Amino acid sequence: MSDIPIRKEVEAIKDYIPGKNPTEPGVVKLASNENPFGPSPKSVKAIGEEAGRLQIYPDQKSTRLREALAGKLGVGPENIICGNGSDDIMQVIASTYIEPGDEVIVSKNTFSLYELVTRLFGGKLVLVDLKEAALDLAALAGAVTKKTKVIFLTNPNNPTGTIFTAAEFAAFKKKVPDNVLVVVDEAYAEFAENPDFPNSINYVKEGRNVIVLRTFSKFFGLAGLRVGYGVARPELIAPMFRTKMPFNVNRLAQAGAAAALDDDDFMAKTLQNNGAGKDLLYAELDKLGYKYKKTEANFVFVSTVKPADEVFLELMKKGVIIRPLTSFGFPNAIRVSIGTPEQNKKFLAALASC
Amino acid sequence: MSDIPIRKEVEAIKDYIPGKNPTEPGVVKLASNENPFGPSPKSVKAIGEEAGRLQIYPDQKSTRLREALAGKLGVGPENIICGNGSDDIMQVIASTYIEPGDEVIVSKNTFSLYELVTRLFGGKLVLVDLKEAALDLAALAGAVTKKTKVIFLTNPNNPTGTIFTAAEFAAFKKKVPDNVLVVVDEAYAEFAENPDFPNSINYVKEGRNVIVLRTFSKFFGLAGLRVGYGVARPELIAPMFRTKMPFNVNRLAQAGAAAALDDDDFMAKTLQNNGAGKDLLYAELDKLGYKYKKTEANFVFVSTVKPADEVFLELMKKGVIIRPLTSFGFPNAIRVSIGTPEQNKKFLAALASC
Repeated sequence: MSDIPIRKEVEAIKDYIPGKNPTEPGVVKLASNENPFGPSPKSVKAIGEEAGRLQIYPDQKSTRLREALAGKLGVGPENIICGNGSDDIMQVIASTYIEPGDEVIVSKNTFSLYELVTRLFGGKLVLVDLKEAALDLAALAGAVTKKTKVIFLTNPNNPTGTIFTAAEFAAFKKKVPDNVLVVVDEAYAEFAENPDFPNSINYVKEGRNVIVLRTFSKFFGLAGLRVGYGVARPELIAPMFRTKMPFNVNRLAQAGAAAALDDDDFMAKTLQNNGAGKDLLYAELDKLGYKYKKTEANFVFVSTVKPADEVFLELMKKGVIIRPLTSFGFPNAIRVSIGTPEQNKKFLAALASC
Repeated sequence: MSDIPIRKEVEAIKDYIPGKNPTEPGVVKLASNENPFGPSPKSVKAIGEEAGRLQIYPDQKSTRLREALAGKLGVGPENIICGNGSDDIMQVIASTYIEPGDEVIVSKNTFSLYELVTRLFGGKLVLVDLKEAALDLAALAGAVTKKTKVIFLTNPNNPTGTIFTAAEFAAFKKKVPDNVLVVVDEAYAEFAENPDFPNSINYVKEGRNVIVLRTFSKFFGLAGLRVGYGVARPELIAPMFRTKMPFNVNRLAQAGAAAALDDDDFMAKTLQNNGAGKDLLYAELDKLGYKYKKTEANFVFVSTVKPADEVFLELMKKGVIIRPLTSFGFPNAIRVSIGTPEQNKKFLAALASC
């Protein structure tokens, strides 16, 4: 049988390494930044009501969800495109805008899907080092050439939880030519409490060449449902509706996500728990002598003396799954999601005996 | 504000035109080949049980669903990849195998997504005419050149409901060089009753370069949930796991689809209704003097004297939505999905007074 050769670009693509799921009951998973309260009960109810209509194709345009989001964000539905998770929107950005040979600037040691979608569409990856485990906006802007088409930024950054501020983003945008598309992945934005966190949607309102990515996977506890969205000026969004798969967002996702937006109690509880979890983790990590990064997300980046892969195995034996950051390029760091108080305590107790 | 140029290939992509959804109660939709019985109750139950766990990311590999499918098809899980609808798998095939400049052979006037995914990855479309509204396998094989990478076939064909037989497919495969990847989209295969319908999975078992695409959208009534799959030899499937988005199939889709496979009553009822619907439609269309194609799917291709777009509007006024085939390249034909007996009768009565 003849082999069917795969594309050259595909040869360079590595396997995506997800967080490990528990295989035994009682094991605590703090590896994938999932909401410890589960999905909003309003989402679960909306999904139950929609499940009997699953024979019908989804609305191609996610109209109701986009209208609900537009109301919350103070933009129009024409500013929004929904996807099967925000990774779907990353792929759609690439399929719409990245030509073979276009340069795409990405930070090293961060979320790996920017690299994947760039490679899929033949873009040339330009990788920029982090600076003190945070995005180096000056270096990212400095990497721009005449061939630069897209820059991917992550704010708060994954896996470090650091942010760039409104002033830093403004300075960056001044340096970057206007014909470069800046994609800001704000998967964790709803957790950010720092008043200097940028209001990137304002750039969209001003008609700048910025696409903001958000997701229902983290804050809203709907990682399993797959809903993310992009926000940008209508001229950037419209062609993306032609390149996305027509029925990319399933019916239950459209219904469940819209319902989550109305659950103020769930949102307040999530934010309160995350803040309290940070305080507990910081205090106890200090006592244990671990160095960590202050976070604006729902996870904490913790430096380890032992190799992270060893710490991972030891913690797993004690019933706690965290993410060793070896595959992100940090062989001596782990990322722990902020859980319920009980989960956080279980993690801390396990870490103390490592 | 500078414009961000879209890719050259994207300029040629047309909007996907979906079936129209009813906006008023009592309107019958026979436009998108949806199962008139809705989803299987077993799927709805499985979805309800899974909805409370939506904070957890889906299994990247859809392991349980692939195992269930493998058991039904008599292949191994390593022969199967699941997608967010089979259109997702079409995109993954293109992203894995189609290099810019590769020739991709597609029939004219059929499902439009083969064209979309080919354009997205810079493939060169080679379009082949239908012959008497059916795929022309001889002409498709005759279009092969040294640059041909992929051929997309649809069996049963959409929108004509025609099939190519096992003997015709065998003859086609003999003519087509072994280093050409043949993708057979069998979205409607479960409805095919003709004993000459090919067993394409046998080609997979023999290790040939064939990818069979199936979906839960039609027969299983889960169009709104988004689950499709590809079946091929493991060497063809493995690289596709690297190019797909990691969490492409949502948790509810994995659970709901697996449950549907166990609902023998639902499957029997769906098949029985479809057969009876065909008989009714054939008999009444004969009486009304309409020409149509005998179908192996869950829809009937009906030729119209008036322009299809006019027939569409007249039927819609009478509360029945069908698909005018103008956008498929048949300005004088409609496609009507087979519904419940009541829905079929409502369509026939509306058509009689057109």
